[in-house]
Amino acid sequence: MADTPLVGIVMGSKSDMDVVQECADQLDEFGVPYEMMVASAHRNPGRVHEWASGAAERGIRVVIAAAGKSAHLGGVVAALTPLPVITVPIRTSDLGGLDSLLSMVQMPKGVPVACVAINGAKNAAILATQILGTAMPEYRERMVTFKREMAED
Amino acid sequence: MADTPLVGIVMGSKSDMDVVQECADQLDEFGVPYEMMVASAHRNPGRVHEWASGAAERGIRVVIAAAGKSAHLGGVVAALTPLPVITVPIRTSDLGGLDSLLSMVQMPKGVPVACVAINGAKNAAILATQILGTAMPEYRERMVTFKREMAED
Amino acid sequence: MADTPLVGIVMGSKSDMDVVQECADQLDEFGVPYEMMVASAHRNPGRVHEWASGAAERGIRVVIAAAGKSAHLGGVVAALTPLPVITVPIRTSDLGGLDSLLSMVQMPKGVPVACVAINGAKNAAILATQILGTAMPEYRERMVTFKREMAED
Amino acid sequence: MADTPLVGIVMGSKSDMDVVQECADQLDEFGVPYEMMVASAHRNPGRVHEWASGAAERGIRVVIAAAGKSAHLGGVVAALTPLPVITVPIRTSDLGGLDSLLSMVQMPKGVPVACVAINGAKNAAILATQILGTAMPEYRERMVTFKREMAED
Amino acid sequence: MADTPLVGIVMGSKSDMDVVQECADQLDEFGVPYEMMVASAHRNPGRVHEWASGAAERGIRVVIAAAGKSAHLGGVVAALTPLPVITVPIRTSDLGGLDSLLSMVQMPKGVPVACVAINGAKNAAILATQILGTAMPEYRERMVTFKREMAED
Amino acid sequence: MADTPLVGIVMGSKSDMDVVQECADQLDEFGVPYEMMVASAHRNPGRVHEWASGAAERGIRVVIAAAGKSAHLGGVVAALTPLPVITVPIRTSDLGGLDSLLSMVQMPKGVPVACVAINGAKNAAILATQILGTAMPEYRERMVTFKREMAED
Amino acid sequence: MADTPLVGIVMGSKSDMDVVQECADQLDEFGVPYEMMVASAHRNPGRVHEWASGAAERGIRVVIAAAGKSAHLGGVVAALTPLPVITVPIRTSDLGGLDSLLSMVQMPKGVPVACVAINGAKNAAILATQILGTAMPEYRERMVTFKREMAED
Amino acid sequence: MADTPLVGIVMGSKSDMDVVQECADQLDEFGVPYEMMVASAHRNPGRVHEWASGAAERGIRVVIAAAGKSAHLGGVVAALTPLPVITVPIRTSDLGGLDSLLSMVQMPKGVPVACVAINGAKNAAILATQILGTAMPEYRERMVTFKREMAED
Repeated sequence: MADTPLVGIVMGSKSDMDVVQECADQLDEFGVPYEMMVASAHRNPGRVHEWASGAAERGIRVVIAAAGKSAHLGGVVAALTPLPVITVPIRTSDLGGLDSLLSMVQMPKGVPVACVAINGAKNAAILATQILGTAMPEYRERMVTFKREMAED
Repeated sequence: MADTPLVGIVMGSKSDMDVVQECADQLDEFGVPYEMMVASAHRNPGRVHEWASGAAERGIRVVIAAAGKSAHLGGVVAALTPLPVITVPIRTSDLGGLDSLLSMVQMPKGVPVACVAINGAKNAAILATQILGTAMPEYRERMVTFKREMAED
Repeated sequence: MADTPLVGIVMGSKSDMDVVQECADQLDEFGVPYEMMVASAHRNPGRVHEWASGAAERGIRVVIAAAGKSAHLGGVVAALTPLPVITVPIRTSDLGGLDSLLSMVQMPKGVPVACVAINGAKNAAILATQILGTAMPEYRERMVTFKREMAED
Repeated sequence: MADTPLVGIVMGSKSDMDVVQECADQLDEFGVPYEMMVASAHRNPGRVHEWASGAAERGIRVVIAAAGKSAHLGGVVAALTPLPVITVPIRTSDLGGLDSLLSMVQMPKGVPVACVAINGAKNAAILATQILGTAMPEYRERMVTFKREMAED
Repeated sequence: MADTPLVGIVMGSKSDMDVVQECADQLDEFGVPYEMMVASAHRNPGRVHEWASGAAERGIRVVIAAAGKSAHLGGVVAALTPLPVITVPIRTSDLGGLDSLLSMVQMPKGVPVACVAINGAKNAAILATQILGTAMPEYRERMVTFKREMAED
Repeated sequence: MADTPLVGIVMGSKSDMDVVQECADQLDEFGVPYEMMVASAHRNPGRVHEWASGAAERGIRVVIAAAGKSAHLGGVVAALTPLPVITVPIRTSDLGGLDSLLSMVQMPKGVPVACVAINGAKNAAILATQILGTAMPEYRERMVTFKREMAED
Repeated sequence: MADTPLVGIVMGSKSDMDVVQECADQLDEFGVPYEMMVASAHRNPGRVHEWASGAAERGIRVVIAAAGKSAHLGGVVAALTPLPVITVPIRTSDLGGLDSLLSMVQMPKGVPVACVAINGAKNAAILATQILGTAMPEYRERMVTFKREMAED
Repeated sequence: MADTPLVGIVMGSKSDMDVVQECADQLDEFGVPYEMMVASAHRNPGRVHEWASGAAERGIRVVIAAAGKSAHLGGVVAALTPLPVITVPIRTSDLGGLDSLLSMVQMPKGVPVACVAINGAKNAAILATQILGTAMPEYRERMVTFKREMAED
């Protein structure tokens, strides 16, 4: 059962993989099963719609969405699922990621996302695990250990 | 036939109507038939999806999308239609509309929008009419007259 | 048992209450029990330390921290608890809340927060309920209903 | 007749050609005939004036203007033609293109431009083709195909 | 001869007059003859062209151009005259005048303008008088007196 | 007695050492004894708490705190000590250090920090020595000499 | 002797007094003697020069400089005295004080200032007292009391 | 007499010479005699004071001041001379020169500077020559020729 993905990661472009890999690595380290997909809210709206609409029923409990520039992916997914959606704004060569950040974080009333720092893929993984930990003691324990190890490092 | 809407206006929230009214008024003045709808990309994704997917077939030739903050509406519509999509970033009380502007204008490769100024609803109407004018001589003529009147004013 | 607070709200100043009230109202509407405290990370570090360190053991599952300007409250709390911490950057009269936003969202590796929009207190409540919903079916159901009602509105 | 340019591209400096080439390539791929000129609104105002004033009569239906820094080219052209004018703000080494973007997008009432993303030359080509497609079925078809291919990619 | 205007003031919109009045008042106080015109670079390109092209020959020695948002007026005038052009970026309700400022100050190589502060109309008058003072002793003297009075105030 | 540290330097991450070294070098040149520690307000809250709470009693008279992104270190230290706290915002690859700067400088009423420029570690050392010089004549003298040497250089 | 000013406050304009009053009030509350002067670095350079050059010899130990827009006052004073200089960037109606802040905080190597928040006049007073407290036990004590009272409030 | 400098160039740091050289080269090309000095408003206030106070009497007619970060040099010089002062904000590695730009351009009422673009040293030379041209026909002629050559290039 541990193999059923609990976290669904979606990114807007293959080029985001450089950043998102850090997220996957951290989930691996925490032993959190996840699935990962590349699908742009703009170029593949159908695929995003299908993936997001079915996520909760597939057993996904937390979504992580990474995108850059007019970063609509997180908002589009959040519109389609009752699950908490973590967003990772990707750094941009023009505006340093301020565009991605504002596109993601300034969500209107009714449809929140949980935004982390620009390129904060590792933190997205930790936040997802904290969220899982609200219900699953092993992840809560893992978070306690992680904090202790970090403090001792 | 003149009554079939050529321009489809969609806005993210009823509160955007204050700004968008200027767009409708200008289209009225130009004699351009339009339809208008309030539907949030985040709160009513289904309605937006249905409206945008069918716009071209209903005879709409140009879309105008107005939204504020994480202004995803224009991008979401642009993902679903082959029509040109004009976006109006709505001013915000926090960041003056810089958030709306960057959310709208920084679209990734493959899915453009035509962004006008913050709160530039009147200009969206003019741009839409210019686009219609590329095919319909009466609107081209109207644009020539409009420019001349403006210069003489 | 439904009365044991599941969400802990902390704000940096009494003046933030205007914004935070919207969060409390939304949690009330969802039937989510919460506790609420005013404590500045800068003026009352001891109180914040005590509150944050004990939150998990008191049964709190999600923290919401609202603060403005150099908004360190969320980060300070996140440093002291394994729980997920949602942060609400408060609008400022000088920089519109860009200072609060960047202070909160740009957390370094290892200690994430889940940042919502400037003054996004209502969305913080929804996000907290979504997080509770990953474990508690009644809140998951509530979120599904909430989205449906919003779409129909 | 297919050889009569339908799109007129103008850029402010030879150095903009690196970015604008992507626009030309995309129009080539779509089979849209275009003309291209380097002329600065500041250094060659006469040439820009002549080119813009005559564009509509030469058969041009859409203008694309690319420029950086105090990017006045698009506005100057828009002042002189009833055609729709798409603007491409060029990235700058100082401010990342925020200067170009604000110079272009914040047009005053009466004279709109259709602004795309910083360095969004490829999107300018797609938007121009969408505009042509409002009147010419082959380009409308091309846009439908393009979107389908992109989604399948 | 004192009545021949030495300074030519042009503003993009009648609404800029609130700010520009301070400029005229200061020139009056300094006894500098000036002419003043409202003409938008976007709405009245012909009038701006004619005015700017003939300014030097009419005896104007310094131009002051005030405009807001995509503030192209100063650059358009500077392209058409060998005279020094002072620009006054007008404050905007959306972005505080950052748009006007960047549109004006970031001029490309070859065509400078002399930009003063946002809404800095009074300073534009002083700068114009300083420039006149490089050739006309009475204005140089006036500037010396003005600085002394200011210091004593 | 000269060996008892008068300045306590704390930085949020080992990677800040590149910048902070300049601070240490300058203090060495001025003959100001200091201690230096790496401790993140987020990852090592306990260590920071202990260090800051005891600083005054250990004889430290001025604190220098360097950190990047959501730079809470200076504020957290300032909350725990009556000593003056100088903060050095570290440049960031995303936003150039604007995030670090605003996180540090916009402290709320009651708990100030003394913020220097982005990456201004050398200036932090000079400022610390100026502060020591308010009480210790040898450092006052050193500052007078330093200014004279700089002017002659 | 308690009446000899220990803190010298200078502000660039009479209009800054609204903000600076809070600084004076706080120093009064702490029993710190101060002197206060209005003198612009731009309009009264001579007066600023004389005041700043003689401050140390008059017994001043800490300078507080408040100014807005191109806020050069703090840097000009810091160039002329070996004393620590605290700067208060004044909020501006155009850019919210970002101009004042960057003008003050980004000082080049060799001449630091200690910048507090936009309009942070009260904090400037506290910081000045903390600096005095490094040498004068009564002010150190006052700071300890102040922090305790604030925490209890 | 042609050898008496008409333009005085001052820069805040030797490192600004890379940018300022373009200014000197352009003045050489125009045959405008100039003098050039490195002197920081912060590190060498005395030298700046002496140079600026005597500039007008030495025959200098226009000043050009280049500086970066908290770029006070132009304002300090403008406070001390009745001559027009052109300022060149130098690009910075942290904030791209936005700090230098705002420090220079936002001058308060009474003491203007003529700000050109970030790193706009060549344009400063052209603007200085335009100013000289208001009185000296050979430079007016040179500006007319320069514009014609540029347009033909």
